[in-house]
Amino acid sequence: MRILPHSIEKLSEELAKLPSIGPKLASRLTFYLLKSSDQDIENLSSTLKQLKKDLKVCKSCFIFSEEDLCPVCKDKKRDHSTICVVENPLDVVALENTSEYNGVYHILGGAISPIDGIGPDKLRIKELIFRIQNSKRKVKEIILATNPNLEGEATAMFLVKKLRPFKIKTTRIARGLPIGGDLEYADENTLARALEGRKEYQVT
Amino acid sequence: MRILPHSIEKLSEELAKLPSIGPKLASRLTFYLLKSSDQDIENLSSTLKQLKKDLKVCKSCFIFSEEDLCPVCKDKKRDHSTICVVENPLDVVALENTSEYNGVYHILGGAISPIDGIGPDKLRIKELIFRIQNSKRKVKEIILATNPNLEGEATAMFLVKKLRPFKIKTTRIARGLPIGGDLEYADENTLARALEGRKEYQVT
Repeated sequence: MRILPHSIEKLSEELAKLPSIGPKLASRLTFYLLKSSDQDIENLSSTLKQLKKDLKVCKSCFIFSEEDLCPVCKDKKRDHSTICVVENPLDVVALENTSEYNGVYHILGGAISPIDGIGPDKLRIKELIFRIQNSKRKVKEIILATNPNLEGEATAMFLVKKLRPFKIKTTRIARGLPIGGDLEYADENTLARALEGRKEYQVT
Repeated sequence: MRILPHSIEKLSEELAKLPSIGPKLASRLTFYLLKSSDQDIENLSSTLKQLKKDLKVCKSCFIFSEEDLCPVCKDKKRDHSTICVVENPLDVVALENTSEYNGVYHILGGAISPIDGIGPDKLRIKELIFRIQNSKRKVKEIILATNPNLEGEATAMFLVKKLRPFKIKTTRIARGLPIGGDLEYADENTLARALEGRKEYQVT
């Protein structure tokens, strides 16, 4: 028997379509919203509607942007000779949060994944090469920061080969034990990489 | 530096206000929605807007309803002499999903919780008593199905005392080990309750 009103069940169903939100959480969210003020619901609804309005993509790095160039690509203080290649826009956000990187980015839009039917042609690799060839300032380093998983590694390897003719220093972000991690619980691959990438202490 | 457009950050912020959704999941959801079709986003936005429209509360059991009486309270095949008292509407959904219960419900709207400033007067206890006194069919059993936690138990005990004058059979849902649970990992209280509520095998 359908007990709850249609409007409640419909919102639960819509929310359950989103990733990481199962039917139980969808119900909880719906009942939370039922208790929220009309204003809060109106806000969320209109924010959703506005999401894609006036949204562009940065001509240089392909992150979502309000203007033709994103704040990073527009910034003259950033090092435009270093390009960090990532899979997705959220990777840029994560890297920016470290405050450790002063170069610019290039968003591939995913990683090579034959299972999902994503070949190199579906990624912004041509655009990366075009950018290297037509950059005002000579590109000195390409940092490959695709994810440290099967697809990300394959994409990095593919890019290394593609970029070889340009004779630019190409690096890969370090893989090893995560900070705060526990050796005992690390998987073999991570541990193997951590050993392989070990660094010598500078004893003075 | 703010890297992402305002509309993206705003939706992430709005989503992060919801329960069980942290900033990371909020970002993931936002980027998932960015990839969704305009139609899907429009659907979600309008479903949200419609949520509280034409929404009533059942006059009898206080669940959200499209009409004055909810489908359960309207159903003549249900046993209206048995009232199952629960804290929230989702508890009704959970109980209905078992297909084991044929009586009707009464939603308190929470549990007694002095820490949160919720006293008995903030729950629909007066309404329950009014319902018992004015029911066309004599109420034969009240099942207390508040949560098996501190607040729920306190509420159940409060109700037992309140309902005593009416001399109606009052029961409490069983507490014990959950099906599929593991004795080794059960907490002491659950285990103590499971022992206390043990049942004898009917040896024939």
